[in-house]
Amino acid sequence: MREHFGPKTWLYPMPVLMIGTWGADGTPCLMNAAWGGISEENKISICISENHKTTENILQKHAFTVSPAVAAHVSECDYFGIVSGNDVPDKVARAGFHAESAKTVDAPVFRELPMALECELISYDPVTCRLVGRIVNISAESCILGSDGKIDPKKLDPIVYDSVTHRYYTLGTPVGQAFSAGEIYK
Amino acid sequence: MREHFGPKTWLYPMPVLMIGTWGADGTPCLMNAAWGGISEENKISICISENHKTTENILQKHAFTVSPAVAAHVSECDYFGIVSGNDVPDKVARAGFHAESAKTVDAPVFRELPMALECELISYDPVTCRLVGRIVNISAESCILGSDGKIDPKKLDPIVYDSVTHRYYTLGTPVGQAFSAGEIYK
Repeated sequence: MREHFGPKTWLYPMPVLMIGTWGADGTPCLMNAAWGGISEENKISICISENHKTTENILQKHAFTVSPAVAAHVSECDYFGIVSGNDVPDKVARAGFHAESAKTVDAPVFRELPMALECELISYDPVTCRLVGRIVNISAESCILGSDGKIDPKKLDPIVYDSVTHRYYTLGTPVGQAFSAGEIYK
Repeated sequence: MREHFGPKTWLYPMPVLMIGTWGADGTPCLMNAAWGGISEENKISICISENHKTTENILQKHAFTVSPAVAAHVSECDYFGIVSGNDVPDKVARAGFHAESAKTVDAPVFRELPMALECELISYDPVTCRLVGRIVNISAESCILGSDGKIDPKKLDPIVYDSVTHRYYTLGTPVGQAFSAGEIYK
């Protein structure tokens, strides 16, 4: 028996994308967004409205970073979505985060967010709020790498946004290997 | 100390989007995709190349459904990404899935996938592979609803795709309430 909810913006999983930028005066800005994801190979698209400080910064610097929010800093990552950089220009410092220059683009990474997609602006459309970026580098702190040198998701500990109950979740247990689990039906 | 990986299509979390369509002869088709997500209010965008049976079906019917893949059927959901509906037209039946008509659009939902976004085609661009759909209804089996009548993510049990190690994960534990956890920094 199916229940019907009408048009809703619900999906599982939804990401918590932390968008990092530099202001014109060098102040770091960080905000969160859930409406976005990988849109093509080495490209990410995010819905972000025109009035954000982040949007102004991206259009000026042509660059931004996207870090997955992590469980260790769920309160800070939530805070960055509650207050605007237009109203609280020092919100990064207030939450105790530390900005550093990304290696490849003119945007900050944050010591507290151990993985970042370093992106160049491809396009922004204020009508649809669609920001598209080219991923030019992925950087990750050594401490979240496994013995194979790859990012270990349990060490990164990214959070997932539940758009129905507005809760953040961790990742659980591995339940299968992609491109392999389904071989039994071939 | 940051390690640098160059341009990679990595993000956490990445979804496992199960795209359901009807063929011209009424055969149900189901494939998975990880490059996509919510792109605006009540809109979803997915990167899907032109050669898929699913793309042909969508362009013909102007409709599709998107169901989050679930842990109980991880092998079947993986299988739907391994084989093409062009080569194995009865792949839905082979994996033991059961298609039913969605309430609001000309596309199937599946008994084994208890939540579905029922979508109308807005646009498809074969150059960027970008499919955009309008979410006209969300349907969910009663058995995944909590006592509050909302979708309970632990009952739905959606899976997350790890694009680095190609593993599927469940959701873990709740770690905070959005628009609330961050209030302590205000």
